Amino acid sequence: MSQYAYANIDDTIVALATPQGVGAIAVIRLSGKDCIALVNKVFKGKDLMRQEPNTIHFGTIRDGEKILDEVLVSLFKAPHSFTKENSVEISCHGSQYIVRQIIQLLIREGARAALPGEFTKRAFANGQFDLAQAEAVADLIHSDSEASHQAALSQMRGGFSNEIKELRQKLIHFASMIELELDFSEEDVEFASRDELKALINRLLEVVNHLIKSFDLGNVIKNGIPTVIAGKPNAGKSTLLNALLNEEKAIVSDIAGTTRDFIEDELHIEGMCFRFIDTAGLRHTEDKVEAIGVERTQEKMKDASLIIYLFDLVEDSVSEILQEVNKLENLGKPFVPVGNKIDAASPAVIDQLQGSEHSWQFISADKGTNIEQLKAELVSQVNLPEFKTGDTIVTNIRHYESLVKTREALHDVLNGIGLQVTGDFLAMDIRQSLHHLGEITGEITTDDLLSNIFSSFCIGK
Amino acid sequence: MSQYAYANIDDTIVALATPQGVGAIAVIRLSGKDCIALVNKVFKGKDLMRQEPNTIHFGTIRDGEKILDEVLVSLFKAPHSFTKENSVEISCHGSQYIVRQIIQLLIREGARAALPGEFTKRAFANGQFDLAQAEAVADLIHSDSEASHQAALSQMRGGFSNEIKELRQKLIHFASMIELELDFSEEDVEFASRDELKALINRLLEVVNHLIKSFDLGNVIKNGIPTVIAGKPNAGKSTLLNALLNEEKAIVSDIAGTTRDFIEDELHIEGMCFRFIDTAGLRHTEDKVEAIGVERTQEKMKDASLIIYLFDLVEDSVSEILQEVNKLENLGKPFVPVGNKIDAASPAVIDQLQGSEHSWQFISADKGTNIEQLKAELVSQVNLPEFKTGDTIVTNIRHYESLVKTREALHDVLNGIGLQVTGDFLAMDIRQSLHHLGEITGEITTDDLLSNIFSSFCIGK
Repeated sequence: MSQYAYANIDDTIVALATPQGVGAIAVIRLSGKDCIALVNKVFKGKDLMRQEPNTIHFGTIRDGEKILDEVLVSLFKAPHSFTKENSVEISCHGSQYIVRQIIQLLIREGARAALPGEFTKRAFANGQFDLAQAEAVADLIHSDSEASHQAALSQMRGGFSNEIKELRQKLIHFASMIELELDFSEEDVEFASRDELKALINRLLEVVNHLIKSFDLGNVIKNGIPTVIAGKPNAGKSTLLNALLNEEKAIVSDIAGTTRDFIEDELHIEGMCFRFIDTAGLRHTEDKVEAIGVERTQEKMKDASLIIYLFDLVEDSVSEILQEVNKLENLGKPFVPVGNKIDAASPAVIDQLQGSEHSWQFISADKGTNIEQLKAELVSQVNLPEFKTGDTIVTNIRHYESLVKTREALHDVLNGIGLQVTGDFLAMDIRQSLHHLGEITGEITTDDLLSNIFSSFCIGK
Repeated sequence: MSQYAYANIDDTIVALATPQGVGAIAVIRLSGKDCIALVNKVFKGKDLMRQEPNTIHFGTIRDGEKILDEVLVSLFKAPHSFTKENSVEISCHGSQYIVRQIIQLLIREGARAALPGEFTKRAFANGQFDLAQAEAVADLIHSDSEASHQAALSQMRGGFSNEIKELRQKLIHFASMIELELDFSEEDVEFASRDELKALINRLLEVVNHLIKSFDLGNVIKNGIPTVIAGKPNAGKSTLLNALLNEEKAIVSDIAGTTRDFIEDELHIEGMCFRFIDTAGLRHTEDKVEAIGVERTQEKMKDASLIIYLFDLVEDSVSEILQEVNKLENLGKPFVPVGNKIDAASPAVIDQLQGSEHSWQFISADKGTNIEQLKAELVSQVNLPEFKTGDTIVTNIRHYESLVKTREALHDVLNGIGLQVTGDFLAMDIRQSLHHLGEITGEITTDDLLSNIFSSFCIGK
């Protein structure tokens, strides 16, 4: 159970739960023990107080005699709701005006506008899930690729939390054994074998290190792989980006109603998200600058995890190209050399490049030739072999930081064992490890921490 | 009943019903006789086929073994749903990615992406409501003021349709009486008294004219009152606009989660929407142009229904101001003369202006003085006295056009009576009137007309 004592847990909170904007319907959500009675005051059609949980009721919301809308009301009763409290969802017509009117009416009737994340905060406070799971709810909502979605969903369903809890349980056992020793300190007994403790800590460190390492992948999963398309002016960089993106856009807009114009320059391949770093500056100066732009591009490449370097097979000579490739190697970042304008290139050039040590891609960005092969190559460059599907992956920087602190505390325990310190010192270091592990799942929290976490949620969640 | 025979009425349609974007939840809607079985194939938790209608069920949506999301599924069974068909609403986490995945999965399982307005079209085809009511659903969603909301809601609940249907019923009675005469044409009888018909047509014309006239108000209600703030450079026009708007914005943002940044320069007072015509050009040239800008402003004023003319009480002389007011009168549009900078003005100037025939407003835009009084004056200038609350108001241009055509046909009937034409000619004109009235409520439709209407709906509605 959480140590967090939630203030005003008894009042009724209300918020729009669906996105802003115009749609067929909008859903207004309420939670709190009196919320059904509250909605009942303004709902005409049925007596909501006499209805079964998990049922839906048609009627009107009225402000006095004035009808605000025809709605469907869904009823949920404690503890069988998201918040584990009584809860109501009002499905009204998707007009901002109507939503505003209904929420204002409910507030006049005694509800309070929910704070960001307050529904999830209540769910956490009422033991619906732990903190890491609550955070995964927000991640899930913002997930926009196969990988980030699966990581968030598995986290929301407890995957990560279970691993942490198991680790913590083992440590608690040792802590209590050592604390028992302290009670018998004059008798110089060892309930907790130092060798066994050392073995446990080493096993724990292995797991914690694995989780910490997974954050590199987790970060990529959550935020995408920062990718730069570089190359000489007129090599066809913008054309390539469009060729990569347009195809995806076409697939996406297949499903009417789910267009996503607001996402710019992100490419999803096999569930991985490649996020293109803005190289607009490079593009715009193409007509001015004639020199091969590696020096200038390096600036932009600093933030990239992957570089696509585009060569013009018609304009560039083989020796020129190979020289560039050498410079690229010195950057020490994964890069994919791509020969563009294959349709107009001399076979000899292609032959010579194919003979070099790199895994060359030959395309026509303009005609869309071999774009699929290029995509496959991009995926193969994202090389994080030690993680398999189903592995626990840390995607949250807060969790990452707590894991790093846990690792430090575990090292302190190991050092303590090596230095043969007394049980009370060992117990202190173990408690420190427990503290940091507990921070992740919310066994250890502070109001500040909780405010911090939930205030980054959207309203209505 | 509608004559419209709906194609593919038996398949299952699916669409996102809530607005695009990120939110706590999103709702995916399906309709069609097999939709519950279809969702049941991908839903794990319960057998949806064995559940009662109007109930809600928690579970997961799975693509094979892969969990796409934890969801709530709401079940509706024919004829007790919006479309009068079996219907399912899937409430999932509000991620675009998840919505896309679930819709794609449902389409793979046999659903079809719904066309814009297709849910409402089915509701219409299945006799849930008539065409004018269906159109009111769209208006309701886009309503953003008290007046437009009330007009759309009253229309959706049948107000306007009832009036039209009553008129039409009376005409049908007369048409049948006249057609009866045709059967007995050799006996020279008159089942339908020409005097009574004339009286009915005149009563009908009165109602139709009233409805046509209401469209002026309806248009204002639906689209807002086009309003211009004019005046000399530095009179404080932008400051006034901000003073008017900021107050509203503050009220609006009181209700967390319902901010509406995307609406620019609209002001709602007492349920009326004042839409400010962009006078950015005027504002931007303020520092260049020193002449009183009436000539230049007239251009902008052409589209306005209301003009707020701002004078600088400190800089402008009384005679100068009164001269301007005379010019304004010649425009023949409602205008509100406003004296700005009252806090620094000489009382003598104010006295003299107050003595003139116009209803002067004296404000300080900067300090926010007397802004409420100005708002009240704006409302009183929107002078459409012959319509009272509860009156039927036409807001739809299609209805307006059909009413105008009805009027023409009714005049033809009247002329026919005057010229003592034979019953068959009268019957033809009456049928023409019936046709145009029927177009409004959908007794008379064509596929083109329906496509036209519903394709302007949003997807998911």
